[in-house]
Amino acid sequence: MHYKLCFIGFGNVARSLTRLLERKRDALKSKYDITYSITGIATGRHGFAVNPDGIDVGQALEKVESGNSIAPLSTFQVGDSLTVIQHSQADVMFENSPVNYESGQPAIDHVRAALNANMHAITANKGTVVHAYQELTELAKSKNKKFRFESTVLGGAPVFSTFREAAPLAELISFKGIINATTNLILSRMEDGESFDDAVGYCQSIGVAETDPSGDVDGWDAAIKVSALATALMDFPLKPQDVERKGIREITPAMVNQAKSEKKRWKLIASAERAGSRIKARVTPELVDSSSPLYGMLGSSTGLTFGTDVLPDYSISVSEREGMKSGPEETAYGLLADFVNAVRG
Amino acid sequence: MHYKLCFIGFGNVARSLTRLLERKRDALKSKYDITYSITGIATGRHGFAVNPDGIDVGQALEKVESGNSIAPLSTFQVGDSLTVIQHSQADVMFENSPVNYESGQPAIDHVRAALNANMHAITANKGTVVHAYQELTELAKSKNKKFRFESTVLGGAPVFSTFREAAPLAELISFKGIINATTNLILSRMEDGESFDDAVGYCQSIGVAETDPSGDVDGWDAAIKVSALATALMDFPLKPQDVERKGIREITPAMVNQAKSEKKRWKLIASAERAGSRIKARVTPELVDSSSPLYGMLGSSTGLTFGTDVLPDYSISVSEREGMKSGPEETAYGLLADFVNAVRG
Repeated sequence: MHYKLCFIGFGNVARSLTRLLERKRDALKSKYDITYSITGIATGRHGFAVNPDGIDVGQALEKVESGNSIAPLSTFQVGDSLTVIQHSQADVMFENSPVNYESGQPAIDHVRAALNANMHAITANKGTVVHAYQELTELAKSKNKKFRFESTVLGGAPVFSTFREAAPLAELISFKGIINATTNLILSRMEDGESFDDAVGYCQSIGVAETDPSGDVDGWDAAIKVSALATALMDFPLKPQDVERKGIREITPAMVNQAKSEKKRWKLIASAERAGSRIKARVTPELVDSSSPLYGMLGSSTGLTFGTDVLPDYSISVSEREGMKSGPEETAYGLLADFVNAVRG
Repeated sequence: MHYKLCFIGFGNVARSLTRLLERKRDALKSKYDITYSITGIATGRHGFAVNPDGIDVGQALEKVESGNSIAPLSTFQVGDSLTVIQHSQADVMFENSPVNYESGQPAIDHVRAALNANMHAITANKGTVVHAYQELTELAKSKNKKFRFESTVLGGAPVFSTFREAAPLAELISFKGIINATTNLILSRMEDGESFDDAVGYCQSIGVAETDPSGDVDGWDAAIKVSALATALMDFPLKPQDVERKGIREITPAMVNQAKSEKKRWKLIASAERAGSRIKARVTPELVDSSSPLYGMLGSSTGLTFGTDVLPDYSISVSEREGMKSGPEETAYGLLADFVNAVRG
């Protein structure tokens, strides 16, 4: 089967995905009989391109990465993302526009437009899950298409698909873990003697933290991920503001050292638990000792432990290794996995 | 869709599975439109029953658990497992006969017979994977049926299906972890001051270790699991005797205490890694410190870290929690998951 793909948003993640698709081209064909072409690209600052016969992706990458516009690659003039979706004739849309935590827009509009045009809609954008999960899931179902978002939590590592595909009928009762890599890296560096500000600066210098680090350090990113997990896996629509939330700003070097002397560590822990007909969800710094699986999660590692009705505690974690850090490549893999699973499912 | 099920082997795991199926009966129907009846049971010491119209499972459980024969539940006389398979008219066979590490028999014959009779074949028996993976996989494919074995490694937690279903196109390069719960529990108890013999005795008393504990303490069970993982996930048929293997008998209380004083722990570590066109696989005791995710795996916890070409290190682990220990219920869940995935796939 041949699939036409369009990319709405063409930043680091989307560009990594085009490279990963190219690297996996033979495996896609031999293992799943999938071939593909890219028929639409919408960038933030480098224009738009649509060509239902296929865009030259190498040229598109070159143009964007050298700061030029991709518009000349079009068969006709287009001026916005929705037009790209409508005219690309794509079977699958990858949505990678910047996250808007408040409204989830314009990502939600992109997903809606793609589904309405009978495309699978795949996104790394948490806003779509938190602000429109039910609507988009129902719309996808009515179109017999998929709305997928594996890359929104724990990078591109399988979490949602583990429960959907690999662990059917496991009822999720609770989860707990570290889901914000930046704050974990900051706390690890503070343990090594760095100040909070220097640790934040380091995270900014390697592109892990934003210029305004408050989304990470005040716990908003973690709260949004908790909401996405509860919404999609516990069938409980939860908004970030429903999550009891405390960031790491109050964790002083003295507290970190005191913990260290007691063989403990401060971690920003995210958790949710069914409590009757409600969900008790929170993000808060906690002290853990070496009997906790979270104690050994250092640097930008993240991980979650799931409590279900059918298994002992089941944990999934992702940690850096030489040559493979958390980053756009990992997020891109989650999108690729969503693509394969959407079209073969 | 209605599925007829037969059970070859009716010990703790199989009986747990009948209870789990019953508990999940409504969810199977509402979520996957699956209904089922049990049409064949072969026990080790309590006879055989076949009834294509459905066996009364409550009665079968009662009879077996009170030491009686289930033969009267049959519509006709049967005398062995293969006859149960042939006459059950089942769509799915659950194979839970005792493991034979040397030959994989009679489980391989059961799986072969079931596939030849156009049933999905689902087993918790490592012997089938290690001794006949390729043959049974090809036979299943030729019959358009599934040969599944999720419960062979990390209890019933998703591992094989994670790679098959949730992480398509992830190329497995290496894995490393703790995959034998008994030795991990023994080492944890030795850290708490118990002797090796007392710790083994404890494991035997709670039914975790066999009367002859050598399969666990000499590393055979771990080596067989390494072989199953390499065979099924790395496409590299590996026999247990190809795994460099050293058990935990040489770990003395003095060594455990010395490690403890250095904030380290002895763990029986299983690993495999691609090395050119070969696989380097081993099971051996290693010292780990608190920077390792294995350090926090205590008691009967098990877990694996996977190195792939698309993600940072990805780890899956299973640990005890109150009210849900590793055991037959967990293994039964893996068989249930295999069933759902086989029939919906």
